[in-house]
Amino acid sequence: MPSSALKAGGRTSTFCKSFRRFLSTTHSQRGKRAVTLLPDYLADARAVVKYSASAPDGALQLGVAENQMLEDLLVPALTKFSSSKRFAADCIYYQPTHGRYELREAFCKYLQRLLNLSTDLDREALIMGAGCNAVLENLCITLAAPGEGVLIPTPYYAAFEFDLVARAGLSIIPVNTFDESGVDICGDYIPREAYYPTKSSLNKSLAVARQEGQSPRILLLSHPNNPLGICYPSNIIQDCIDWCRENQIHLVSDEIYAGSVYRSNDFQSTLKLVGPGNLGPYIHFVYALSKDFALSGLRIGACYSENSEIRLGLHKLNDLCQISSQTQTLVETMVSDITKGVFWTSSFLKENTSRIQFRSDAIQALLSEFDIPFLHADSGLFLWIDLSRYLSNLKSDEVAGDLDSMQRRERELYLELMNKWGLLFTPGLSMRHEKPGFFRCVFTAATDREYEVALDRLRKFAEAKN
Amino acid sequence: MPSSALKAGGRTSTFCKSFRRFLSTTHSQRGKRAVTLLPDYLADARAVVKYSASAPDGALQLGVAENQMLEDLLVPALTKFSSSKRFAADCIYYQPTHGRYELREAFCKYLQRLLNLSTDLDREALIMGAGCNAVLENLCITLAAPGEGVLIPTPYYAAFEFDLVARAGLSIIPVNTFDESGVDICGDYIPREAYYPTKSSLNKSLAVARQEGQSPRILLLSHPNNPLGICYPSNIIQDCIDWCRENQIHLVSDEIYAGSVYRSNDFQSTLKLVGPGNLGPYIHFVYALSKDFALSGLRIGACYSENSEIRLGLHKLNDLCQISSQTQTLVETMVSDITKGVFWTSSFLKENTSRIQFRSDAIQALLSEFDIPFLHADSGLFLWIDLSRYLSNLKSDEVAGDLDSMQRRERELYLELMNKWGLLFTPGLSMRHEKPGFFRCVFTAATDREYEVALDRLRKFAEAKN
Repeated sequence: MPSSALKAGGRTSTFCKSFRRFLSTTHSQRGKRAVTLLPDYLADARAVVKYSASAPDGALQLGVAENQMLEDLLVPALTKFSSSKRFAADCIYYQPTHGRYELREAFCKYLQRLLNLSTDLDREALIMGAGCNAVLENLCITLAAPGEGVLIPTPYYAAFEFDLVARAGLSIIPVNTFDESGVDICGDYIPREAYYPTKSSLNKSLAVARQEGQSPRILLLSHPNNPLGICYPSNIIQDCIDWCRENQIHLVSDEIYAGSVYRSNDFQSTLKLVGPGNLGPYIHFVYALSKDFALSGLRIGACYSENSEIRLGLHKLNDLCQISSQTQTLVETMVSDITKGVFWTSSFLKENTSRIQFRSDAIQALLSEFDIPFLHADSGLFLWIDLSRYLSNLKSDEVAGDLDSMQRRERELYLELMNKWGLLFTPGLSMRHEKPGFFRCVFTAATDREYEVALDRLRKFAEAKN
Repeated sequence: MPSSALKAGGRTSTFCKSFRRFLSTTHSQRGKRAVTLLPDYLADARAVVKYSASAPDGALQLGVAENQMLEDLLVPALTKFSSSKRFAADCIYYQPTHGRYELREAFCKYLQRLLNLSTDLDREALIMGAGCNAVLENLCITLAAPGEGVLIPTPYYAAFEFDLVARAGLSIIPVNTFDESGVDICGDYIPREAYYPTKSSLNKSLAVARQEGQSPRILLLSHPNNPLGICYPSNIIQDCIDWCRENQIHLVSDEIYAGSVYRSNDFQSTLKLVGPGNLGPYIHFVYALSKDFALSGLRIGACYSENSEIRLGLHKLNDLCQISSQTQTLVETMVSDITKGVFWTSSFLKENTSRIQFRSDAIQALLSEFDIPFLHADSGLFLWIDLSRYLSNLKSDEVAGDLDSMQRRERELYLELMNKWGLLFTPGLSMRHEKPGFFRCVFTAATDREYEVALDRLRKFAEAKN
């Protein structure tokens, strides 16, 4: 691991400091290092009393990317899909490390429907493993050597730092978008262009990283984007594809929210844009059932790559994160189920996106009412909110762009939201946002009743502040 | 990764050569490196036609550690354990990374019965993950830094080299036992003392490794032993415990065959010898359901450590290899099932060990008939056979102790057994045995009919050779 594990344009993050501290200690500290890769705010969140029947004043946890609106659909369906007359004898023994043939066959067909592909996916290019994090880690291990870099547009899902650093030993290189875009926030509107990666921002990050002696090998895109709750337009994805191929950098398109697009007709999978069979060595894809189907407990991840150079190694590494054969057959049944000509997955996703949209509309309407800026979301489980107007003033000894002062001010607002208003959002700086005071609200991480309470609390917060 | 990834007393293995070759190539070769960690003989085995109804002359694969005698017991039991009225709603979401509380509770009780422990195991010290390889890898990652060494008495389960080198980046240091023991093979009898690790052989390996600039941090014991098919006596385990504590080296006791002891009353788990609560920082334990229950498809591994320093890191790393929640509840039901006062696991293991013993007795009797030396087995699925008398003579330009000549001669015999006699055994040198011509026979990796054919073929081989 290089000491420059996380740098953005020369700015050394808190993460990096604590990481360096661990590098200087004794040898058997890899487990401890893994722990330091977790953001600080999680400890604050853990310490507070959570909302429950017995604690109606407890804080509502809207900072964890879960969808809690689907039990009524999932429980009966999973009960049906998992009830078979007989445990299959061939499930007892070792399976192909990248997944049972039948599962890969069924999952390819599911992905073809989900992503609207007109060409068949290759069953041997699909690797199924125990969660998106597990397959993403293995994919990146085969694509880059320890110390090499992964470019990720900011803000980004904080756990990528754990997934790609802890064991893979890669170095995360944030690609700043907001400052680079030159776009301003006007009124209650955050323009989505402010967050698009462009050839210009990618070139700049690449140049700075190389100047600092780093070797970026991978560009990781979250599309639809977590935490922004938006899809990138096709031309942006196409630019990323072209830029990656020109620069011989691997593009990993993480499309774990591909089935949670509820407004835009714009979403196009990278697989759709390039076309199966034409991916070449530099384009790769990851997906899972943890978000679109809320099935994080089943640990079903998938990676797709047509790079035959890495395939055998990827299969072998996948030996260390295989899915239980029992659950493989459950998922195979689930994604293949068809009733009256309609796939269960299709009707489920239709109902789910309609529920997501209802929640999304409700919070967007509330924020508009108070002129609080937010990003107009179209996908995922998130709303990206600009609460920077409520940050405390700079102290006399603080400098505006200084990371420590940004963190102090954002943390104060985070703690106020949590302690005074009972709302837990994900703070933007923990996701490497460039400005303080932005928060991710996971509006699906609550029951209907809890969400009602959350909106009521948010209204009170806005009323008190405005 | 150090270039000295695998050295035994200065002897550089073939593995090490191919490993070095990969180190010298371009950056994104980690996946390919993983592939080179697989032994060569597997490619030979893959290329040959296997025995089946349509290929009655095909080779019988007795080189893979599977138990194929249990489908009649497993299929109805797993059908029963997995049939529930309703999919549990809490299984949908993220679980504790080290396993559901209920599973750990039930599994601790199972281990207490299996290992005959009089003290309770600590539910928080147990980490359940997707297979023994996965939890072993994570445990060793928290115990040692990249490049540091893992001592393993020879011969050993070849896949340890993949599990501990591919991503963990550790260096395997074989502990020679056979040459060190000074014990000779007389007649048809291999004395088990020839393979015991002793303070003397451990000290010697430690000294040689340190002289070569390596830092051994872990001693990995397979107990009962794969590939030898024997348990170590308690005094040997106690010596290892004492030696590890004296030298501040971590002992990892891999007891994945603890429930497959069929003859000896001698087996004592390391956990039993030390006692739960007294393990201290240096004693650790791993186990899985893949061998005793033949359930390799379910990927159920467990690691137990009372070292609180590593626990949080271990939990976090385990995020990358979690067991499906569905299968966690299946296993919880399975290990808790009790009928008329008898646990299902107990009656299953009783029947299984009786079947294993029947197979073991049959092959031991056959070999005795022809005065072919073997190790008197008492546990596991293996017989360790000395076929060195059937090796070809040294060529004029070959030296007896030279690794290349040993490999040529052993491979010729391996290929003869495969091609001429239709028998696939695991060659000893692939398991880092010190002398050529020893083979591991997995006598459970066949149906009853196949085993009959296998014994018939072995008899013909012995008759032709004697």
